[in-house]
Amino acid sequence: MAGCCPALAGFLFEYDTPRIVLIRSRKVGLMNRAVQLLILAYVIGWVFVWEKGYQEMDSVVSSVTTKAKGIAVTNTSGLGFRVWDVADYVIPAQEENSLFVMTNMIITMNQTQDVCPEIPDKTTVCESDAHCIAGSAGTHSNGVATGRCVPFNGTVKTCEVAAWCPVEDDNHVPKPAFLKAAENFTLLVKNNIWYPKFNFSKRNILPTINTSYLKSCIYDAETDPFCPIFRLGKIVASAGHSFQDMAVEGGIMGIQIRWDCNLDRAAALCLPRYSFRRLDNRDADHNVSPGYNFRFAKYYNSPAGKEHRTLVKAYGIRFDIIVFGKAGKFDIIPTMINVGSGLALLGVATVLCDVIVLYCMKKKYYYRDKKYKYVEDYEQGLSSEAGQ
Amino acid sequence: MAGCCPALAGFLFEYDTPRIVLIRSRKVGLMNRAVQLLILAYVIGWVFVWEKGYQEMDSVVSSVTTKAKGIAVTNTSGLGFRVWDVADYVIPAQEENSLFVMTNMIITMNQTQDVCPEIPDKTTVCESDAHCIAGSAGTHSNGVATGRCVPFNGTVKTCEVAAWCPVEDDNHVPKPAFLKAAENFTLLVKNNIWYPKFNFSKRNILPTINTSYLKSCIYDAETDPFCPIFRLGKIVASAGHSFQDMAVEGGIMGIQIRWDCNLDRAAALCLPRYSFRRLDNRDADHNVSPGYNFRFAKYYNSPAGKEHRTLVKAYGIRFDIIVFGKAGKFDIIPTMINVGSGLALLGVATVLCDVIVLYCMKKKYYYRDKKYKYVEDYEQGLSSEAGQ
Amino acid sequence: MAGCCPALAGFLFEYDTPRIVLIRSRKVGLMNRAVQLLILAYVIGWVFVWEKGYQEMDSVVSSVTTKAKGIAVTNTSGLGFRVWDVADYVIPAQEENSLFVMTNMIITMNQTQDVCPEIPDKTTVCESDAHCIAGSAGTHSNGVATGRCVPFNGTVKTCEVAAWCPVEDDNHVPKPAFLKAAENFTLLVKNNIWYPKFNFSKRNILPTINTSYLKSCIYDAETDPFCPIFRLGKIVASAGHSFQDMAVEGGIMGIQIRWDCNLDRAAALCLPRYSFRRLDNRDADHNVSPGYNFRFAKYYNSPAGKEHRTLVKAYGIRFDIIVFGKAGKFDIIPTMINVGSGLALLGVATVLCDVIVLYCMKKKYYYRDKKYKYVEDYEQGLSSEAGQ
Repeated sequence: MAGCCPALAGFLFEYDTPRIVLIRSRKVGLMNRAVQLLILAYVIGWVFVWEKGYQEMDSVVSSVTTKAKGIAVTNTSGLGFRVWDVADYVIPAQEENSLFVMTNMIITMNQTQDVCPEIPDKTTVCESDAHCIAGSAGTHSNGVATGRCVPFNGTVKTCEVAAWCPVEDDNHVPKPAFLKAAENFTLLVKNNIWYPKFNFSKRNILPTINTSYLKSCIYDAETDPFCPIFRLGKIVASAGHSFQDMAVEGGIMGIQIRWDCNLDRAAALCLPRYSFRRLDNRDADHNVSPGYNFRFAKYYNSPAGKEHRTLVKAYGIRFDIIVFGKAGKFDIIPTMINVGSGLALLGVATVLCDVIVLYCMKKKYYYRDKKYKYVEDYEQGLSSEAGQ
Repeated sequence: MAGCCPALAGFLFEYDTPRIVLIRSRKVGLMNRAVQLLILAYVIGWVFVWEKGYQEMDSVVSSVTTKAKGIAVTNTSGLGFRVWDVADYVIPAQEENSLFVMTNMIITMNQTQDVCPEIPDKTTVCESDAHCIAGSAGTHSNGVATGRCVPFNGTVKTCEVAAWCPVEDDNHVPKPAFLKAAENFTLLVKNNIWYPKFNFSKRNILPTINTSYLKSCIYDAETDPFCPIFRLGKIVASAGHSFQDMAVEGGIMGIQIRWDCNLDRAAALCLPRYSFRRLDNRDADHNVSPGYNFRFAKYYNSPAGKEHRTLVKAYGIRFDIIVFGKAGKFDIIPTMINVGSGLALLGVATVLCDVIVLYCMKKKYYYRDKKYKYVEDYEQGLSSEAGQ
Repeated sequence: MAGCCPALAGFLFEYDTPRIVLIRSRKVGLMNRAVQLLILAYVIGWVFVWEKGYQEMDSVVSSVTTKAKGIAVTNTSGLGFRVWDVADYVIPAQEENSLFVMTNMIITMNQTQDVCPEIPDKTTVCESDAHCIAGSAGTHSNGVATGRCVPFNGTVKTCEVAAWCPVEDDNHVPKPAFLKAAENFTLLVKNNIWYPKFNFSKRNILPTINTSYLKSCIYDAETDPFCPIFRLGKIVASAGHSFQDMAVEGGIMGIQIRWDCNLDRAAALCLPRYSFRRLDNRDADHNVSPGYNFRFAKYYNSPAGKEHRTLVKAYGIRFDIIVFGKAGKFDIIPTMINVGSGLALLGVATVLCDVIVLYCMKKKYYYRDKKYKYVEDYEQGLSSEAGQ
């Protein structure tokens, strides 16, 4: 304890600060201040003003619901006059962040479990039973071959399959699209966001918008940027595509909602920004199952109890609602971290100027002499303590 | 080479360290140590203990499956006595991170493709055919106007539409909710998480829980915080809402599972934390399509082959399971980065004390004299080398 | 102004740099350079080469579509000979990032709203009406008890329930799986990714792959690593599980697509990497609803107008497509931040060597004397200015 106290006192009552060489030179002084100014400008300008380094950030948590509205009328020989409403063309009826609107379809009605000839293509056309291997089922076939070769129509014979018969013929996609009126359907997107760190939540239906406006508005980037009701045709057009082209073979549209909020300012300035992008970029070279389609069936029981179904190959546009964004709010911790980093970067100014002063300037030996105090290892020679 | 070797030897065998001025002063010394202590306490306390800066972090990858259980009984004039089970009220039958439970509905049975009068409202009530424009279809209409004005009932005439007839009348939502018994349904949530960086995975069904407990338990924040089976009514109540109110017009409930794990400690301490939040915050001012509902149809074929359907406007609660969390584990890289930053921040202590010592204290000129060695640019005058 | 100008001139034309003690010692010099080399190697090697600290990073935004193909044939006494195609076994028909393939099922046909005896188990077996409480409905019961005890078969009596009758008996899961042929089904995954910061997008169907290859290829980690068509059996096998085992009770498979891209290099080198993982890790101890299943129903109307349904308890494999990854591109900001941190870390070398030189070496007092200039607070004694 006796030996410890003086050491502790020495530790507590001493203040060590680097000894500084102060060079009074216009050239070097101005250069040094200029470099420091640049670094300071960078730290303040970029880190604090641009990147808002004094804020704590949080990512958005979002909940989306969608609702389509609209009526389409078709009049074909197969189906007759028919009205299509939302329960007919939205499949499945509800999804989490997504909505599929059927725009085109190939319907195969009254399919039953039976045997029938395959659709003719390279692998199914046959001349005799020898070409058809019983029990085989290719990747693209509609059923299991029975081994018989039967006439498909007057001119062509194909292998017979056990399948849902008659088999679907999807070689010709209706063009223009069957439900081309879908262009005028509307889509209401309700989005509720939450920033958990700041316990801040907001809806995309802004409090400044009144109910009568909401009943009639349609989103437009210029005139109605906060209306949450979108016309399908306009969404596709905003992404630079043609709705009628897209409707034929289907596709995926992204409705992006960006919530970038500075919570140091008023909550009313935290607003959604909508943008649209086609997510399935088609290229002419790769038309392996282009666009977007899937098959579903409606099952019926005949009075005799036999099951039959209507198979629908549905082409359409899937609207994926993608919500992203960041919110920031002043916080002491990131502020201090960035101040610390900024001060460390200021040290770079000294290093840079030292290099120039000590290695590049004419008077470098004079300055070196002033900056350095040379200490020889006294085993190598105590005599020559240069520089002091 | 001859000139290079001494330079290289000089570079290798020299050690440069800043020359330090050691001021023996109680005031300054204590101040300096206090500032250093504060910074050290911040670096160790906040960065290492609180923020766990010595750990590498990873975000959770999650997989969720859900299963609802429960039976509801209804007895109405329209449908008679009817039992509803999971296949009736969960639509669609499976989703990825979500489950919809129907709690209320408006059923329109035996719709066929036909013509019929519209539901009376501002735009559809008419007095003569002149009010109805053939072929027109408003955003909210159920079909395409035929141009005729026909009696809706004894007193009101409305425009006739070609549509699925009879058209749905959704002006009156049943209150109390049709399937109000849904309050007692249970929801089993199976959640499997994975931290890819640490190859650590865990389930929300903890290994300490036995099967018989799982068959009978119900989640309760106090008594059963790790039971993965939830009573729907309790979920809504935990979020501070009334299930029976919410059931009428539907809504979205978030079931949040937080997995914050410190993998430096035992894996058994990495536990799920459940919380509940209503994601569609209703406000009285904006009742444009409040709550949550969607329409779907069940299609039937009559014996004569004519298609008819039962349209259901389903109101209900969608349970979104939101899994989040971070895991940390000791790693040398972030530890070194944070040690480096901490040391850089310690330099701030010297800067602060320097400012006080050299600018604020009485003896500032004395200290400045000791700290600085003034070097004049010898063109400006070599004579006066002050401070040395 | 008169007093300000010299001060400003002094500030502008002065350059302060720390005075350095240069110790000419082989031991200390080599040690210092070695520590600096280590830190430099760490900064360059780890931060710049390994972690690519000079790059700005962005996380992937992704859009996924899936399409299953394949035919299965079953021949059972209940259903007869039957062919299953994609519209039969994919439920629901489309999902956002997921696809469910039914592999096994328990079908309960021709259910109607009626009364019938419950399936016998611990709680439902009864001897007289006294055991059955009218109106009660347990969590696992199929309907509401009528209060009567009726014979289930020749030997057992169970409580009667009002329910969809006959009630489902799911005690025996078919083994082997009903649609065991699903092992050979194929799954086409179309994935389009986007890095918003760099406006870089790419598909998993690479431009170097031609259409005829795509029509016939099957993914294989060794031979066809970029074919986006997967055989279901191979996916499960890659994750180290048996498809036929998994098919019986179902499960969740993760198809992980990793897009780690260095956008400083050619875009053609940004390639998807596929991996597979089972997401529902079963363990033998907790078989509470193991695997993955859900119930859905197909509704029919009898000619008399009475509704009946076919209830299906569908077991199957849900394929979740999980897309993740990061892209990096050179950017001046993170480069400067990392250079700054690296320089700050270089200061650690001096601190470390100082500790060794001043506290551990034999000649420590000699070096201390050279490094420190002692300044006494002149109130305590101006006389002894040691070290200078």
